[in-house]
Amino acid sequence: MRAVNPASGEALGHSFDMKFARSSRADLDAMADTAFDAIDFLADAPGAQIAGFLEDYAVRLEGDRAGIAQIAHEETALPLAPRLSEVEFNRTTFQLREAARVLRDESWREIARDEKNNLRSTLVPLGGAVVCIGPSNFPLAFNGVSGGDFCAAIAARNPVIAKAHPGHPNTTARLFAHACAARDAAGLPKAALQLFYDCAPEDGEALLAHAGVAALAFTGSRASGMRLKRVCDELGKPASLEMSSVNPVFVASAAGEARAEAIADAWAASVMLGGGQFCTKPGVIFVAGEKAAARVAARAAELMRAAPPAVLLTESVRTHLARAVDALRGAGERVLCGGREISPGFRFEPTLFAVDAAHARKFRSLVMSEAFGPLGIVVAVESDGQLVDFARGLDGQLASTIVSDAADAATRATLLGILRFKAGRVLDEAMPTGVAVSPAMVHGGPMPATGDARFTAVGLPAAAKRFSKALCLDRVRA
Amino acid sequence: MRAVNPASGEALGHSFDMKFARSSRADLDAMADTAFDAIDFLADAPGAQIAGFLEDYAVRLEGDRAGIAQIAHEETALPLAPRLSEVEFNRTTFQLREAARVLRDESWREIARDEKNNLRSTLVPLGGAVVCIGPSNFPLAFNGVSGGDFCAAIAARNPVIAKAHPGHPNTTARLFAHACAARDAAGLPKAALQLFYDCAPEDGEALLAHAGVAALAFTGSRASGMRLKRVCDELGKPASLEMSSVNPVFVASAAGEARAEAIADAWAASVMLGGGQFCTKPGVIFVAGEKAAARVAARAAELMRAAPPAVLLTESVRTHLARAVDALRGAGERVLCGGREISPGFRFEPTLFAVDAAHARKFRSLVMSEAFGPLGIVVAVESDGQLVDFARGLDGQLASTIVSDAADAATRATLLGILRFKAGRVLDEAMPTGVAVSPAMVHGGPMPATGDARFTAVGLPAAAKRFSKALCLDRVRA
Repeated sequence: MRAVNPASGEALGHSFDMKFARSSRADLDAMADTAFDAIDFLADAPGAQIAGFLEDYAVRLEGDRAGIAQIAHEETALPLAPRLSEVEFNRTTFQLREAARVLRDESWREIARDEKNNLRSTLVPLGGAVVCIGPSNFPLAFNGVSGGDFCAAIAARNPVIAKAHPGHPNTTARLFAHACAARDAAGLPKAALQLFYDCAPEDGEALLAHAGVAALAFTGSRASGMRLKRVCDELGKPASLEMSSVNPVFVASAAGEARAEAIADAWAASVMLGGGQFCTKPGVIFVAGEKAAARVAARAAELMRAAPPAVLLTESVRTHLARAVDALRGAGERVLCGGREISPGFRFEPTLFAVDAAHARKFRSLVMSEAFGPLGIVVAVESDGQLVDFARGLDGQLASTIVSDAADAATRATLLGILRFKAGRVLDEAMPTGVAVSPAMVHGGPMPATGDARFTAVGLPAAAKRFSKALCLDRVRA
Repeated sequence: MRAVNPASGEALGHSFDMKFARSSRADLDAMADTAFDAIDFLADAPGAQIAGFLEDYAVRLEGDRAGIAQIAHEETALPLAPRLSEVEFNRTTFQLREAARVLRDESWREIARDEKNNLRSTLVPLGGAVVCIGPSNFPLAFNGVSGGDFCAAIAARNPVIAKAHPGHPNTTARLFAHACAARDAAGLPKAALQLFYDCAPEDGEALLAHAGVAALAFTGSRASGMRLKRVCDELGKPASLEMSSVNPVFVASAAGEARAEAIADAWAASVMLGGGQFCTKPGVIFVAGEKAAARVAARAAELMRAAPPAVLLTESVRTHLARAVDALRGAGERVLCGGREISPGFRFEPTLFAVDAAHARKFRSLVMSEAFGPLGIVVAVESDGQLVDFARGLDGQLASTIVSDAADAATRATLLGILRFKAGRVLDEAMPTGVAVSPAMVHGGPMPATGDARFTAVGLPAAAKRFSKALCLDRVRA
């Protein structure tokens, strides 16, 4: 594995490069064996000791803020400031401290007592490591060695075996060095946190089957997620999977007529944010009323045409985006702007398609498939009734937005009644990009958005429960 | 389907018999279509209205206590009193009232608010029916139309499509009649609760795939559970599966030496309770020390030899039990007592095997497989260290008991540290049969005991969360 600068397409050299070898099955077996050294330790350690590790880790990261942000910027082409050095950085350290908080207050445990029957129930760790596989698009806040799944797994007192994303190995190595220093300073066993960079898919599956591994946390593509889900399902091991979502926006007719351009402004900005590489990108906007839809499309095209090409995270992201654009074109969809790869590096023009309702129904799986990158689709539907029909036909989503005015109240209520079952998060007006880290957040949703709509990947203590086991101590002596 | 009296093996006639036809795929499709009539109603109804239905249902059951218990007794051969008419009956009405309580107090919802970010998160229903498939061994308290899964599904405001167990169709029909009367009196839609008696396996799978069905609750055999798990996993629909467990007892050396006979008394009684047809039956007891193990085996054999044959729930239970006994004999295990089918009806002698540690390792999957019925296995192990080794090698269990004295403190601590990850419930001294219905209960455990160790099937509000979906309302207007 070589680190690459997406802005230039050229290889990046860093002192950590020698570590980026592919791990063999024996290497991975050894990591899973090693995890046993940390399972009981973490289950039994004072919460304050593990919390201290996380808090010290956050401090160490803050001491290397500029360096980490710079490396992440080079590897991902995401903006240095404020995105990496402030927004994502602060989110990362905040999450570490939130995990420390729930370790201290034990709020993740759902403790219940029954004095009469002498029962005590509590969530406990899973008894094995959580394999954390992070995505390309948040090199810090969803990194397997520092991100939300890492925090949740450690909050529930599980060891972590992380896999670095190939898009930012140096960033991961740098984070991991701080994590290890904090781990050692806190007196946690080395096995509490392990990292590998690459493996053959079948060796990854063998790792999941190892007795030292209890669960998977995966954020990435639907194809990889579904493959790993099958492996974990067969093993009976929990898999937290964040996979794919188009996060549709529904614009009711009165709102569309009254303020199509303002809606287009908000939507197009959300589509292009971060190069369109958010899992909450609102990839499709359904607009009731053909005139309103045409106005949304025209305004969005104007904005997207004026915007610079996005530098995508990896060559693979660009390849997939180009394929999605080609497929939409092949289906006869009308491209309003963009659609081309640009040099140097992995650039792509902001791209807008306009689709009518009949086409959207005919090519439903194409229109409603997530495509990472600055690609948006406006679907013109004839009526609020059609809007509702499209909502009813949705697959599971991370988020979905309703845009409505007072005259749209009935449509809005109907959409809310449908979307509550379809999406993990429903918004009035606001675009879905931007996921607040809060105990009241749900970053989840029915398959294929995630693997299980009962859970959230963001927001502690709830997110920690993904990596826990229920235990009742029945008449057990203190 | 014909109802059969297990005590005589003869067919039972009741006025409901004409309903026990096998449902076609079209019938099941129609039920799932119908479920849509109840989804929004239940999601939006006042909690008190649904709670009122459950409370009225409980009252109606109490008004027919003798009749229901009598029919259940005829169909299952379980003791009329106190088992059916009191213990299981009261458990059933208590569970209905617990579900009503959590509907009133909304404690199942896990509501979280974030005023600063204007977020409200809550669990909501799944947006489809829960298919409830109950087991043979609790005709009331785990029945698909009145039992724990039914209560949990309704508590989380989901419609229920129940499948009657073939072992007690008349009981189920009688319960269902009361449920429907209460449902209608409370003004709930008929689609809130539907029942079928039988279907082809492939039609059952098609039912699970229907958009009107959101989840499965299954209590039954491991083979059927795993088949249904694969179907639900592929669909991304939650499946709550309670499958198989041997609930091992570990007797540490000092305790075994000090009181082998008293331990055998408690264990043998637990093995024979309810004809050995509890999912929490402690099917295997590991005893450290060969002398102590021999004493446990001798005393248990004495008790089991003196006990009358158990009348098993169905012919199928007897067939499976006879097969398990034959397989153990075929592996050369030593039968200390019992082992024979007895007439009339589906009777079987209480049966005890004694196994040494080497055999238990060699035939591990045989010894450690659940066999419904009055079958117990004493495994003699040489030392506390071997006891610990067997604990480490366990598959997932619903429950496990440690029997120890003061001198066994270190062994007990080691076993506790292992069993917390292996079983949903760990007990000091007490045998695992007898599951208190309490918010602090965990009736769950890692696969193959259940499909997901994060959940419990008993104890509200937690059990309701199995049939819920997480939702965040993000800047949604009130």
